[in-house]
Amino acid sequence: MTAISPLAPKGGFPKLPVIEGVRFAAVGAGVKYAGRLDVMLAEIAEGSTIAGTFTRSKTRAAPVLWCQDNLAMGAQAGGAAILVNSGNANAFTGNNGMNGVETTANAVAQTLGINPRNVFVASTGVIGEPLPAERITAKMGALRDGLDATNAEDAARAIMTTDTYAKGAAASVDLDGVTVQIAGFSKGSGMIAPDMATMLVFVFTDAKIAQPVLQKIVSSTTGTTFNSITVDSDTSTSDSLVVTATGRANMDEITSITDPRATTFATALHGVMLELAHLVVRDGEGATKFIGITVKGAESNAAAKVVGLSIANSPLVKTAFAGEDPNWGRIVMATGKAGEAADRDKLSIWFGDILVADKGWVSPDYSEEQGADYMKGQDLTVTVDLGVGNGSATVWTCDLTHQYITINADYRS
Amino acid sequence: MTAISPLAPKGGFPKLPVIEGVRFAAVGAGVKYAGRLDVMLAEIAEGSTIAGTFTRSKTRAAPVLWCQDNLAMGAQAGGAAILVNSGNANAFTGNNGMNGVETTANAVAQTLGINPRNVFVASTGVIGEPLPAERITAKMGALRDGLDATNAEDAARAIMTTDTYAKGAAASVDLDGVTVQIAGFSKGSGMIAPDMATMLVFVFTDAKIAQPVLQKIVSSTTGTTFNSITVDSDTSTSDSLVVTATGRANMDEITSITDPRATTFATALHGVMLELAHLVVRDGEGATKFIGITVKGAESNAAAKVVGLSIANSPLVKTAFAGEDPNWGRIVMATGKAGEAADRDKLSIWFGDILVADKGWVSPDYSEEQGADYMKGQDLTVTVDLGVGNGSATVWTCDLTHQYITINADYRS
Repeated sequence: MTAISPLAPKGGFPKLPVIEGVRFAAVGAGVKYAGRLDVMLAEIAEGSTIAGTFTRSKTRAAPVLWCQDNLAMGAQAGGAAILVNSGNANAFTGNNGMNGVETTANAVAQTLGINPRNVFVASTGVIGEPLPAERITAKMGALRDGLDATNAEDAARAIMTTDTYAKGAAASVDLDGVTVQIAGFSKGSGMIAPDMATMLVFVFTDAKIAQPVLQKIVSSTTGTTFNSITVDSDTSTSDSLVVTATGRANMDEITSITDPRATTFATALHGVMLELAHLVVRDGEGATKFIGITVKGAESNAAAKVVGLSIANSPLVKTAFAGEDPNWGRIVMATGKAGEAADRDKLSIWFGDILVADKGWVSPDYSEEQGADYMKGQDLTVTVDLGVGNGSATVWTCDLTHQYITINADYRS
Repeated sequence: MTAISPLAPKGGFPKLPVIEGVRFAAVGAGVKYAGRLDVMLAEIAEGSTIAGTFTRSKTRAAPVLWCQDNLAMGAQAGGAAILVNSGNANAFTGNNGMNGVETTANAVAQTLGINPRNVFVASTGVIGEPLPAERITAKMGALRDGLDATNAEDAARAIMTTDTYAKGAAASVDLDGVTVQIAGFSKGSGMIAPDMATMLVFVFTDAKIAQPVLQKIVSSTTGTTFNSITVDSDTSTSDSLVVTATGRANMDEITSITDPRATTFATALHGVMLELAHLVVRDGEGATKFIGITVKGAESNAAAKVVGLSIANSPLVKTAFAGEDPNWGRIVMATGKAGEAADRDKLSIWFGDILVADKGWVSPDYSEEQGADYMKGQDLTVTVDLGVGNGSATVWTCDLTHQYITINADYRS
């Protein structure tokens, strides 16, 4: 086993609040790994609303297609569930893929007495191998018996693949005097350049909120959270984010995005999603540095994000961070290749608060020693001012180290 | 020093033909490195035509801007020259950048008695440090005295940075009974995802060809040669390709792109440029595998190239090759994230001649052992049939190894 990431939060998995209307169970089904939890079930009470976003990959996995269909059809009467396995992505498995989804979704539906189209499924692990669905369906009784509102940590552990720690985050928010709870967990460590959501993220709240409003909030929140992180520029076939609102809080339903409570709730949800996104980067394969990159002065926010991701995905920038080398020339290079409007002679760069390059050349006050000292830190920021407009964006990434190569040159065999 | 790339051609630098009208010299000027050649001069006789393509980076270096201006102005009367240094890229150096260019171009002009706007300059090495132009101008006498038509290999050595071997290629072509020679050299090893040409490439021919025709041929040839290779997806601020035709061959000038000789010449030039491009990939930082990736069945040739580069730039694909792991799932992933039209259930993949995945799932005849055996080779091909159209493209890349991290986490300090 790989050691726990040096960027992991101290103190381990956080104590998540109970979300009324949701219960979790996790079992070891031996899908691929032995001697560990690898299947999790979340039971969701009737009356909940569910929203989600998924990968835009053209080779999306069968479970993703199934979940997208569920959302498109709208919720069926009765309760709902989420079933997730690790060890096998059930991706690129031809017809067998959808068979596996239907078999497991039907088993959950039968076990919990709900409509199979209310069962959301996700699979993560190796691509191209048939899902051993029978190992999962054989555990339905154990999953049902294990359901408990306090089992979120086990559920978070069951969905890990190359992750080195389980990732959870929570918030509580006051909506006109009613305290609402939000709790979620995520997995992801490699193949992280989400094009909708990161690999797998599940968030639960007891807020009472209509599905279209919840979906709107979720969709508008991914851009600055999961879609603003990258470990290795590779986009998974299975990225899925599912947000469930059980409506168990003692409040009037939020039925419009213009309800002031929608904004308050969205801000709290954004915080939880951003924390879960950061936890994924902090567990980036081989990562030793957590790096926030802010680009400002761009033609638009979208342009700023393109430049930010160009820097964050540059192997030369990422290896410079790994080597604690304040090689700002590589940041110039990655800015230039991004293709967005930039003017070499207006470009300024900071490492943390240190002005390194000022309008096209190294700052006269900057010394290489300052930069080298700064690079020794573990949580780093880079700011680039393009000087051509008012757009800005922040993205997060990690460094590219020998350990990434070690993990990925020997993951499958 | 890094050992010579295992992918280097056996037999070392090829014997290049003399190109009438061109003489080369190389010296050690101590621009940054000590005890090696680091400046090269090519003297080009009056009556030659020169064409070029350059990086599209928004943070292009001063020498690139100078060369682009030269071409835009058109050739001045008299002879021409190319001056190149390694060790310092003269990029992101503010006003000092153009000063350095002008100082060195003027020195060459004075030494050879030519117009400074006929002097093409290129610099490669560290970004952001002022060019010590005086070290280069101090060597003008030695460069002039060293000029010799047979000195191309020294010139090729002088422009190396992290390259592990000098790169040359040549061809001769019969144009209506006249034998025309083409010879060129290139450098490049990291920061290779050219967006116009690779880092530095210089090609010479004695063909007699009008400048607009030569430029048209050069521009149309880069797309399938230098713009179809990638080592690490990072685009240099200094990419420059300059092609010189001295017109010394005993032939009537080619004045139109519709002249059949233009096609014959373009094919030969394409061959030399492709060989130089491949030599750059074979010297990719840390490379142990040379990988050709062909995508067919795409909506268009452009779409095929986007998918090809998505595969070639995927860190997970590249590390799988490094680990000799036939992990075709990662090829599916990289195909899916490219954003071009694709249909999971029409997708087929070959390693060499081995059909691995057939229309959306692993081929029934494929065994993991076959794939693993194939991966042990050094020169590998991947073919992906998207099954949605008739577009195709081939790109070339190398694997991503520990050595890449070693080189780039400790290049500057």
